[in-house]
Amino acid sequence: MFGQMQDSPLLVSQLIEHAERLYPTKRIITKTVEGDWHIYTYADAAKRSRQLSQALISLGVKQDDVIGTLAWNTFRHFECWYGISGIGAVLHTINPRLFPEQLDYIINHAEDKYLFIDTTFVPLLEALQAKLSHVKGYVIMCDEANMPTTQLPNVLCYETLLSQQDGDFAWPELDERQASSICYTSGTTGNPKGVVYSHRSSLLHSWGITGKDITSLDSQSIMLPIVPMFHANAWGLVYACPMVGAELVFPGPHLDGASVSDMINRFKVDISAAVPTVWTMLLQHLRQSGETLESLNSVLIGGSAVPRSMIQAFDQDYNVEVWQAWGMTEMSPLGSLNRPLPQDSKLSYEEQLNIRSKQGRPCFGVQMKIVDDENHELPHDGKAFGRLLVKGPWIVSQYFKMEKSALEDDGWFDTGDVATIDATGNMQITDRSKDVIKSGGEWISSIDLENAAMGHPDVLEAAVIGVSHPKWEERPLLIIVPKNKNKVPDSEALLHFLADKVAKWWLPNGVEVVDEIPHTATGKINKVGLRETFKDYQFEEAIA
Amino acid sequence: MFGQMQDSPLLVSQLIEHAERLYPTKRIITKTVEGDWHIYTYADAAKRSRQLSQALISLGVKQDDVIGTLAWNTFRHFECWYGISGIGAVLHTINPRLFPEQLDYIINHAEDKYLFIDTTFVPLLEALQAKLSHVKGYVIMCDEANMPTTQLPNVLCYETLLSQQDGDFAWPELDERQASSICYTSGTTGNPKGVVYSHRSSLLHSWGITGKDITSLDSQSIMLPIVPMFHANAWGLVYACPMVGAELVFPGPHLDGASVSDMINRFKVDISAAVPTVWTMLLQHLRQSGETLESLNSVLIGGSAVPRSMIQAFDQDYNVEVWQAWGMTEMSPLGSLNRPLPQDSKLSYEEQLNIRSKQGRPCFGVQMKIVDDENHELPHDGKAFGRLLVKGPWIVSQYFKMEKSALEDDGWFDTGDVATIDATGNMQITDRSKDVIKSGGEWISSIDLENAAMGHPDVLEAAVIGVSHPKWEERPLLIIVPKNKNKVPDSEALLHFLADKVAKWWLPNGVEVVDEIPHTATGKINKVGLRETFKDYQFEEAIA
Repeated sequence: MFGQMQDSPLLVSQLIEHAERLYPTKRIITKTVEGDWHIYTYADAAKRSRQLSQALISLGVKQDDVIGTLAWNTFRHFECWYGISGIGAVLHTINPRLFPEQLDYIINHAEDKYLFIDTTFVPLLEALQAKLSHVKGYVIMCDEANMPTTQLPNVLCYETLLSQQDGDFAWPELDERQASSICYTSGTTGNPKGVVYSHRSSLLHSWGITGKDITSLDSQSIMLPIVPMFHANAWGLVYACPMVGAELVFPGPHLDGASVSDMINRFKVDISAAVPTVWTMLLQHLRQSGETLESLNSVLIGGSAVPRSMIQAFDQDYNVEVWQAWGMTEMSPLGSLNRPLPQDSKLSYEEQLNIRSKQGRPCFGVQMKIVDDENHELPHDGKAFGRLLVKGPWIVSQYFKMEKSALEDDGWFDTGDVATIDATGNMQITDRSKDVIKSGGEWISSIDLENAAMGHPDVLEAAVIGVSHPKWEERPLLIIVPKNKNKVPDSEALLHFLADKVAKWWLPNGVEVVDEIPHTATGKINKVGLRETFKDYQFEEAIA
Repeated sequence: MFGQMQDSPLLVSQLIEHAERLYPTKRIITKTVEGDWHIYTYADAAKRSRQLSQALISLGVKQDDVIGTLAWNTFRHFECWYGISGIGAVLHTINPRLFPEQLDYIINHAEDKYLFIDTTFVPLLEALQAKLSHVKGYVIMCDEANMPTTQLPNVLCYETLLSQQDGDFAWPELDERQASSICYTSGTTGNPKGVVYSHRSSLLHSWGITGKDITSLDSQSIMLPIVPMFHANAWGLVYACPMVGAELVFPGPHLDGASVSDMINRFKVDISAAVPTVWTMLLQHLRQSGETLESLNSVLIGGSAVPRSMIQAFDQDYNVEVWQAWGMTEMSPLGSLNRPLPQDSKLSYEEQLNIRSKQGRPCFGVQMKIVDDENHELPHDGKAFGRLLVKGPWIVSQYFKMEKSALEDDGWFDTGDVATIDATGNMQITDRSKDVIKSGGEWISSIDLENAAMGHPDVLEAAVIGVSHPKWEERPLLIIVPKNKNKVPDSEALLHFLADKVAKWWLPNGVEVVDEIPHTATGKINKVGLRETFKDYQFEEAIA
């Protein structure tokens, strides 16, 4: 027997329509690419998003056509999110920081019909355009006064396109399974893989992240999403804010510490979201300038593990609560969030930092489990660690144009991470599955070893990889970059330093000193490259 | 092009599973039918809900079988919500306050296979059982020690049933459109009509009502749902609390002021929900006893319009914020909620009370519009009033076993209410469509007139109905019950009293004094009955 409620589809356009009806005067503020302030309301944004939909239709764009964007976080990019998806076309947010060969691969793979680009990226596209076989035209996201001289073919001006439309338009009632958007992941190996979100998954994710115990976003919030709209959907905030009527402050390309501090203080931002690198720049700027962050209550930090020192600096120096978030492009992206529990306040500050360094608890909608090599579920005791699997309506099932399911046989998605889960549901990533070192049937976390080694005063950066070993299958090799080339710590001293920080059988069997550790396009340690470099490495001696 | 996210259905069982995983030690507290306290955790509740599912299967219950409950708000009723719906059977919550002929009608109409009943309702069922053609057995919700002697056939003891099962059971992955539950509406005319909820609609509604600007429920909340689980799904709170990890305090049948005050103070309840009648009893008790409500922050009030005096008493005497809620059984039930906006605090207290007397703003997921007799949409100016239409994924499309759609041609559901909507989206019901008085092509609100007349010091209760009029089509007739039979206000004085409270052309053309105004089973004025009584009424003279 089926329920007899309305078959009312969940659509992205409902988010902006809701904001328009209930929060028409709430503001969207942008520091534009040109550097000035642009301020308008949800009512304005809704009308202009409809004008954009009309413009797309006039360009011949149809349902299922993929439209790419290479753009900063701005009001125009916001309009693209609603104007493109609203008519059943598919928004493809492109990360301009990818390598050029990855860029032309994904633009061709997705068959982007038009590209909406900020003036910043015109030179990048000029270099690529000859290879882009499906692109019919380039819409430059500015007004006529700011249009650059360019060699790009079929160039259109965003503001001119909109000015030709009246906004008298109603978004269609699509199937909620209709694709709303695509975002490609950039792995360390192989071509990027596309994740295709639906209107349904985007809406459910928005509900999932707006709970009071998750982001606490509401109509009094003023959110500064620094995480780019081309990076894992800006963590869903561009959908979540209109859902609850939160105001938005978009930073454009201005992500430096001084700009971020200015935006927070100028517009009384109370919540923001970015990767650790951005916060490092902000904290440096604050220390130098003496500026403070009176309005800011909390920062969402994700993308890579949050250093304890960053949690502590925000907390003790600026009275800002760090909420560590964890997710993946494949997860829309939110999987979990670390919000302190009231009972934690009774613990010592060090113990609190231990808890707050974890990746957090899943929001309703995301199921998590950890399993061993034989797929047996492991206990949630904060100690056992295994492959982290996830399940839920905003998690990928299949990559774009790939025949194979992205899931395990039992329908769960393997995150590629290795993690522990404690009794309060708090998950902590201990390693990537492919980086974990398998020694005598047990697992050693490369990340734990790296973090411990990074604590040594003479170490600038550390990486740990598994190297084959005749007896133990694999043993850890520690690779370091010294802070000062003239003060290289010796192997014995380093191992002694680690001895009381990790289990004895985890201690690396060798230490190598290098000038530089290779990184991927997204700033992570390139362990594939390291493993290649050290593939013939021989340990001097095996530990007992 | 469809999105390629997991086809992961939204299921009611996920709510209790989530609570079990993340909030295993959070409590569910019950004042039992027998009068003692029962306290256990979400982990306990989840296990016992699984035992109940096993027991149902052992009784031969299959997917789509309808299982009725006549029960108070208790932990056992909570288990029924998850144990029954979890296996794809359909939970039918029955309002024991219905007239006996309505009770046997709905139990037969829904084809209830088993009835789960509190000991309180055994005599009621004994009187009805001969007419119940589909019921195979009666499960009495108590342990063996409390089993009553009864003439009911095929009687089973709830605790004995559960004790025979081990709880080692996994709920199936159902289609999210599967019916989760049924609730009948009790109109003033005709047979009750069944509303069939789906797992999907129940889940989406839970997300809809847990937002920070809606109920603000989170894992620190301690919720006392006094609104019965047989009354419009207890406003969805029985699903919403496990979704966010809020603790629950169930009052059983103990709804009197002293019991409610005791529960709030004993368990530090911070949020509660009930109809105005319950709060009137509580406020009376508090005034007499001198007790206070230190832990209580807010009360959700719905079911009928909240008197200004009640908002004021909670606010000024007990520092509790009243959140007026509006909804219908057909809407799962939440449509809107009235949370004060920060900017309102600048207004005078009287103006704030005016705003807070409205029925509130829709949560995301509910679309509202008001239309005139020709279906033209009316402006949101707080003045224009018209038929209130709603749309969304947790709103009825068709009543149970009725062929006809419950919707207008354009897919909207007519609430049967007449309302205004102001520029902030705040909706105010001014009348029921069928009660509004149509005078010379204009509408007069019977409720506004009643409220104004109720303000007269000698009036105990007032009702206004439209009576046919040769010139104006209809004109209002005011019917009153005096507080004191020896001090009946005369017509002229009453009309004079109303003169500065309503528009002149709204003034009733006649006043009738009666000993009693008839009410429906749910305590509302029975206007159908009044219209029947006064169908031949003649006004003495027509106003100009």
